[in-house]
Amino acid sequence: MFEQKIKNVKATIERIRAMLESRPFDTVYFVACGGSRATMNPGKYILERETDKITTDIYTAKEFVQAPPKRFSENSIVVLNSYSGTTAETVEACQLAKEKGARTIAFSMFPEKAIGIADEVVFYEDEPSNPPPNFLTIFPAVYQVVFTILDVLEQTSYTPLIQHAMEQLDHIYATERAKRAEELRAFADKYYNEPIFYTTGAGMDYQMCYIMTVCILLEAQWIHSAAFHAGEFFHGPFEVVDKNTPYFCVLGLDETRSMEERALEFLLRYSDKVFAIDAKDFDLSSIDERVRKFVAPVILNRVMQMYGETLATRRAHPLSIRRYMGKVKY
Amino acid sequence: MFEQKIKNVKATIERIRAMLESRPFDTVYFVACGGSRATMNPGKYILERETDKITTDIYTAKEFVQAPPKRFSENSIVVLNSYSGTTAETVEACQLAKEKGARTIAFSMFPEKAIGIADEVVFYEDEPSNPPPNFLTIFPAVYQVVFTILDVLEQTSYTPLIQHAMEQLDHIYATERAKRAEELRAFADKYYNEPIFYTTGAGMDYQMCYIMTVCILLEAQWIHSAAFHAGEFFHGPFEVVDKNTPYFCVLGLDETRSMEERALEFLLRYSDKVFAIDAKDFDLSSIDERVRKFVAPVILNRVMQMYGETLATRRAHPLSIRRYMGKVKY
Repeated sequence: MFEQKIKNVKATIERIRAMLESRPFDTVYFVACGGSRATMNPGKYILERETDKITTDIYTAKEFVQAPPKRFSENSIVVLNSYSGTTAETVEACQLAKEKGARTIAFSMFPEKAIGIADEVVFYEDEPSNPPPNFLTIFPAVYQVVFTILDVLEQTSYTPLIQHAMEQLDHIYATERAKRAEELRAFADKYYNEPIFYTTGAGMDYQMCYIMTVCILLEAQWIHSAAFHAGEFFHGPFEVVDKNTPYFCVLGLDETRSMEERALEFLLRYSDKVFAIDAKDFDLSSIDERVRKFVAPVILNRVMQMYGETLATRRAHPLSIRRYMGKVKY
Repeated sequence: MFEQKIKNVKATIERIRAMLESRPFDTVYFVACGGSRATMNPGKYILERETDKITTDIYTAKEFVQAPPKRFSENSIVVLNSYSGTTAETVEACQLAKEKGARTIAFSMFPEKAIGIADEVVFYEDEPSNPPPNFLTIFPAVYQVVFTILDVLEQTSYTPLIQHAMEQLDHIYATERAKRAEELRAFADKYYNEPIFYTTGAGMDYQMCYIMTVCILLEAQWIHSAAFHAGEFFHGPFEVVDKNTPYFCVLGLDETRSMEERALEFLLRYSDKVFAIDAKDFDLSSIDERVRKFVAPVILNRVMQMYGETLATRRAHPLSIRRYMGKVKY
């Protein structure tokens, strides 16, 4: 069923490819808020490293509206993401982009809502029974769009490789969950009472840490948290670490891995509360080698979330509880 | 003396202008670590909004080395910053940039150290008696370079306005310090025992919050902290806030101010520990109106730091104390 949902996006991807090919573009902006923004960060990261045909950047939606980059024009592609389809700042950014004559692509679970004004809406079908954030199908949707953009620009053929990779995720997630059953329990037992939990990673993984920090720890667990880029860790953040400072580390497979290893090594020396997830432990044999490093952050995100879910259960604080969001006016 | 130091940079600025004019460039990359990186963030922010002649971005130094953007070439300007002149990652980035044939500009207090390999080194003279970070003269140096780049690209004449503005800072800082004497004491009395302190701001101010969080609270005070962009605040981070959550808010003068006001308004409703610095309270009459919004973040940074200094004194935890930096190998 998960695989089927990923396949369902394919028809939209074909239309997006046609839209991209219809006339040249020189900038690609990823624009959204919070977890929805961070989910698209691999887009900026991958495009800016794999192509020099365009420039790309990522913005929190309101800042894009209030202070857009000067290169933003009718030759821009603006890629938006709103789970609910109604995030006010993101809808506003979409309106602005359309007024400007830019082409717009939006991801949403509710394409019939306000965000539906985008030129193309990628309907990603997560399980409504899972409270947001669950990110199960948004990453596959984002990746298919990002690699379609890359393929159009560079005449490469990454998209089928990525589509195939995304169809393997469900199986990889199940394997990781089963393999980690004992460790997930032990994690929750050790950390359920911590008032604070830092996260760190580098490259694309950094924004996966941001998602863990912002969407799981702060938003859904009310646990104090900050995400630090592993390359920045030694330039300030590490001074707060003592034996009792919980740190969640991730290690990926790309060029930036050594930064993550360095932070982990330091933390293991100075804190007794370090937990790491290493993408080298994932069985990625079903995924084409050429795209493994790109896919690793997606799996890191999902596996991190498993620990968040276990923690939530152990703390009897369901991931769906909010005290402000959707409850008070702001 | 402070004014004199800012003037001392002017000769270097003239050489930098000549270097920029010597042949075209299409990208400007700001590359450094921690506070030194965040200090240059106004560079990216201002250039990408004021000119479409180049593209610009900012990177933590090691990531720039390990996974540089594909547009990085001999037509790039790479702007680096290392207080000590020896930050390994930043020196490495400088080497890479030189090998690539890019032009390099570095800021340093110790231009005779390794970073001295840069084509132009802007020697910014902070008081050696002040422990880092003090940021007194680094911002004026960065701003002079950034507006020189802008002037060369857009044929504008911002640089003299900025130089004049920077020469007013010392007086503005003194005024703010005097005006706030009582409030600084009250701040320290109220917050000296807090184990955690969040910061928030938008636009350029966000990175000023990052400096407060990373260089003052985490690095120099060992107080847990995270900096959140005010536009992201409502998309996760705000859920952790209760009556006892300390939040440091800043409000600037640019287009993004309404995001900061919105976060502050929410925080004042739900926390009893909110402290705000508003750039509207600064006397900026000596600064040309056209550059006030650009200069406000610099003053916000300095004033925030005053509160950090008062806190440090009240906590009997000098800003210069480190437990790892310069003490253990990592």
